[in-house]
Formats: sequence, structure tokens, C-alpha cells
Amino acid sequence: MKILVINNQLEQKHIELIKAATAETNNSVAFYNSEAEIPESNFDADIIYGFAPSIVKTSKKLKWLCVPWAGVDSIMSPGYFANDDCLLTNSAGAYGVSIAEHMIAVSLVMMRRLDEFFDETRNGKWLLPRPQKSLKDCRITVLGTGDIGTTFAKRAKAFEPAKITGVCRSGKASQAVYDEVLPVSKLEQILPKTDLLAMSLPATPETKNIMSKEKLSLLPKGAYIVNVGRGSAIDEDALAELLESGHLAGAALDVFQKEPLPQESKLWKTKNLLITPHVAGNMTLAYTKNKNVEMFIEDLHNFSAGKPLRYLVDRKLGY
Amino acid sequence: MKILVINNQLEQKHIELIKAATAETNNSVAFYNSEAEIPESNFDADIIYGFAPSIVKTSKKLKWLCVPWAGVDSIMSPGYFANDDCLLTNSAGAYGVSIAEHMIAVSLVMMRRLDEFFDETRNGKWLLPRPQKSLKDCRITVLGTGDIGTTFAKRAKAFEPAKITGVCRSGKASQAVYDEVLPVSKLEQILPKTDLLAMSLPATPETKNIMSKEKLSLLPKGAYIVNVGRGSAIDEDALAELLESGHLAGAALDVFQKEPLPQESKLWKTKNLLITPHVAGNMTLAYTKNKNVEMFIEDLHNFSAGKPLRYLVDRKLGY
Repeated sequence: MKILVINNQLEQKHIELIKAATAETNNSVAFYNSEAEIPESNFDADIIYGFAPSIVKTSKKLKWLCVPWAGVDSIMSPGYFANDDCLLTNSAGAYGVSIAEHMIAVSLVMMRRLDEFFDETRNGKWLLPRPQKSLKDCRITVLGTGDIGTTFAKRAKAFEPAKITGVCRSGKASQAVYDEVLPVSKLEQILPKTDLLAMSLPATPETKNIMSKEKLSLLPKGAYIVNVGRGSAIDEDALAELLESGHLAGAALDVFQKEPLPQESKLWKTKNLLITPHVAGNMTLAYTKNKNVEMFIEDLHNFSAGKPLRYLVDRKLGY
Repeated sequence: MKILVINNQLEQKHIELIKAATAETNNSVAFYNSEAEIPESNFDADIIYGFAPSIVKTSKKLKWLCVPWAGVDSIMSPGYFANDDCLLTNSAGAYGVSIAEHMIAVSLVMMRRLDEFFDETRNGKWLLPRPQKSLKDCRITVLGTGDIGTTFAKRAKAFEPAKITGVCRSGKASQAVYDEVLPVSKLEQILPKTDLLAMSLPATPETKNIMSKEKLSLLPKGAYIVNVGRGSAIDEDALAELLESGHLAGAALDVFQKEPLPQESKLWKTKNLLITPHVAGNMTLAYTKNKNVEMFIEDLHNFSAGKPLRYLVDRKLGY
């Protein structure tokens, strides 16, 4: 079978690993930095690992698309695949480490007001300490207990929080990591007892606007929010209001309803809001790249052996 | 006995706890926000918990001084105590949690270049991802394995570093926390294998300039440094040079040779240097305050019972 790999972040060692795996499974492989580089003679590929929307939308020969990221909401629209039976895998599992580190970092920056100190000292100002909060004794709620949320919870546990509650669709997640796991139907019960809400949800019809104005208002005064999942999960206007009023102590958003965040968005200037440009998970981290390639190769062996793919996306659930 | 508490950060609950403990031990207590408030009639106190240098320097009646912070270098000079036999305890142990959180936070901010992103987004700029580093697979060396270093190491461990090496005077520290513990005589051997050097040393004659130009240069290209102990431990000029040349990828300093950092210091404008104004450990954090008061009360019971004080400073070692 013909495999195309489209990815400008891969290092030589990753290319060698993929070449070895394709040889072992008697397949052929070609590497490109972008879809524009692919010659017409390769539009009939069987497998694509990477981003090549034009081929996916037109080729009925494509049997398996592996995207090197986690959130697949942007490619779930009807008609995205010319071949309705094309398998779709993602790379959820490669980004947990990177995104969890981001979540811990921005939580601590907000609680310890480090962005204020950096701002001051960069301008030559040595100012006084001011009240800080801590992950110690903090009541953390993780909304979305997949790889990202759970990798975060494992790290957060080391900071001796009062409690870590996981909230997910099924109400089932690792009891070894979470002190308590609740189904999403009980979200309203846990929000008033949450000091830090860590959100790592995929974009699905069920998660859209899940943190509505009403739900955001259930958080206690002084609570913090981190969102690294998808921007569609939060009512951004309500969030801005609750930050400006001082009800919420801080929020750190890496994802937004529209990305890049539009210049006219009020979020740019909202008080106590830390913005990062969707960089919590990306392919620059060595571990992320290695794991990403490793996952593709694992499923390449499965595919070639006619076995079920491990990282298959459930197209009904959307993740 | 007469006890004076001088501390403007205590809450009512702390005052009640101290009152209860003094009553239980048949002592009397008075509370002040600063030394200036203390009436002459109380200059003959037996015990002081707080900062009251004039009384300490003049009263031969003072039997025990408990300082509510960890580093006692500033009060170790000869003649600081009018009573040479006055006992000295510190509050090392109360700050580990706060300072360890700071250390994790600034390490991640540097490695993930979050300060750059915050700076950009505050100015309305949505720029591209850029190469990041990670605590995952990082070789961490903790120089100074007291409460602060060890509390940091426990948290760092959750990020799955390649290895955490502790370096201390004795070469003995918790094997449960560190993968390896070395005596300070082997510091030069571990520095070339260190990606993140986390420094939490007290200021003593032995630690002065311990990270000299020669030792700093032993760190591999791309290494990071965090210092939360005392500024006297680093050659600041050499550090600035190695940051400017790009040999070191970043440093985060909370302590300096002179504090506040003088306006003419080159550090203010040194590339890839994060400065915070000695705020990693302070009394604003609820846990720090609680623990601080708890430690004083524990030793108040010891003192009243004629038992050895648990948090006694070894004046020869200086910590």
C-alpha cells in the first residue's frame, strides 16, 4: 500500500522509524512538508499520516487517515471524507504531557501572580509581595478526564491539593488518579466546591457551551479556570464579565471560540485573563513528536495485520 | 514568661492559637505589627517570635528568638544577640510548599517560553508556536536538599524527569525522593549532566559563590537555572555572560547578591533571565502562615517543658 506522511516537524530519526515500519509491513512511503508538495501521481494513496484535506475530500481510495493531533472536530463535518468508510485515527495521547505541563504552569502563574511580577521586573520595578494562592489544599475539578486531564491530575496530585474531582461523560475514570469521579450530569453539584476548574474537553455537540453563564456563576468567588480543550466549551462573554467583576480570580485560555482570537475580541483586554495562542500542545516538544510517531507506527502494524486500530476515533462521539 | 509576637500578617485564628498555647504553658503574650509598637515595659521579654532587632541587640534577658522565616544569615553576625546564650529557631519547613511551587512554575515558564507568549498576547499578538522544552525526561539537579529542595523534588518527580540528583553538604538526603544523592564535593561531576539546576542553599561561608564562573560553565549548552536560596551562591556577572552568549537557555532568580536588586544591575536587562523580587516564600500563603505558627507553638511547648527546641538553628553551620 501507498503511504503519505505530511509533516514539517519530523526529525531524521522519526523518518527512519517510519521507513523501517513501512518496509517491515511491505508498504511504500513518501514524505512531504505540506500537501502542496504532493505530486498528482500520489493522490491515490491508501494511507495518509498528516494534514492533506484536498486528497481526503476527493480520493475514494483513501482507507485510513491518521491526524497528528488530538481534537478532530474540524474534520468531522459531513462530506469531509470522499470515502465514507475511511478510517480515522488521531494522536490523542501524544499531547497529554505537554498540555498537562502547560496547565500546571498557568495555574501556578495565576495563583502566584507571576505574570504581574514578570511585568514589573521587566520594567525595573522591585515591588512588594502580595497575596498568593496555592495548589496545596486547592479543590481541583478536572472537566474531561481523557489523556490530557488525567496526565494533568497526576501532576497536580503531587502538589497536595485538598481533592481532585474528575468529571466526564461516563462518570468513569481512574480511581487511582482522582479522589472522586462524577458523571457530567453532576457538574452543577461540584462547581460550587471548585477552586480550580481545569477543562480538557473535545469539541462535540455535548460539550458546546457546557460552561454557560449559569454554570460559570456557580463557581465560588475567587475560583480559577484553565481551558486547554476547545474554546466552544465556554461562554466567553460570561467569562469576561465574571473576571471583570472580580467574581473569578483568574482564567488562562489556550483555546477560543474563534482562532486566531479576533482582534476585536474583548478577551484581549479582560482583567486577570492569561491568553496563549493555542500552544499548550504542539509538535515542538521532543516527547510529543516521539510519541506521535510511535502511535502511528503501532497502528500501521495493526492496519497491515488486519487488526483493529488502537487510536480509532469514534465518529459518533466525535473523539 | 513574657512572650512578644511581632507579625503584621497573622490572622485572628493564628492569634487565638498562640494565645491558647501561651495560656496552656502559663506564659503571657502580647502582639504587635512592628517593633516600633512595643512599649518599653516589654523590652524585657523572655521570648520573641518575629522581627525585633533592637531588643535582640540590647536585651540580655531574651532567652529565645524565633524568626518567622528560613534564612538566618542576616542575623548571624557577631554581636547581633546581646545575650550570647539566646536560643535561635527559624521557620525553615514553613516555606517549602510555597517556594517549591514557585520553582516548578518558573521552570515551566522558561522551558515553555510562557513569558514571551504572555508578553505578546497582552499586546494583542497571536504568534506561532516555537520550540519548547519539558520537565519530562529532564535531568534535574537540586543543589541544597533541605525542606525547600526536597519539597520541590517531590513535585518535580510527578513530571517524569529522567533523573533527580540531590547535592548537599553531607551527601545524605531522602533516597525515596532523589534518584541519587551526592556530596557537594562531587558537584563538578554532575553539572555537565544537568538540564535544570535548582538551587535552594542557605547563605553560609561554604555556599558563597559556589556557582562560580567555572562551575556555571560546566553546565551543558541549553541548561536552565532556578535560584530561590540566597543570591550569594551565584556569580551574577558570569551568569549574565552565559545567558547573553546563549550557552544557558534561561535562569529564574528570586534572590540576589544585593536586595532589592540595585537599579544599575545588568541583570534587569539580561536576556532570558526571569526576575522575581524575593517572593517565592512569603507569609501571604495560607499554608505558610498556618505552618509557621504551628512550628512556633510546637517549640513553645518544648521550651516550656525544658525540652530541646525542634527548629533550633545550628549557629556554627549557619542554618
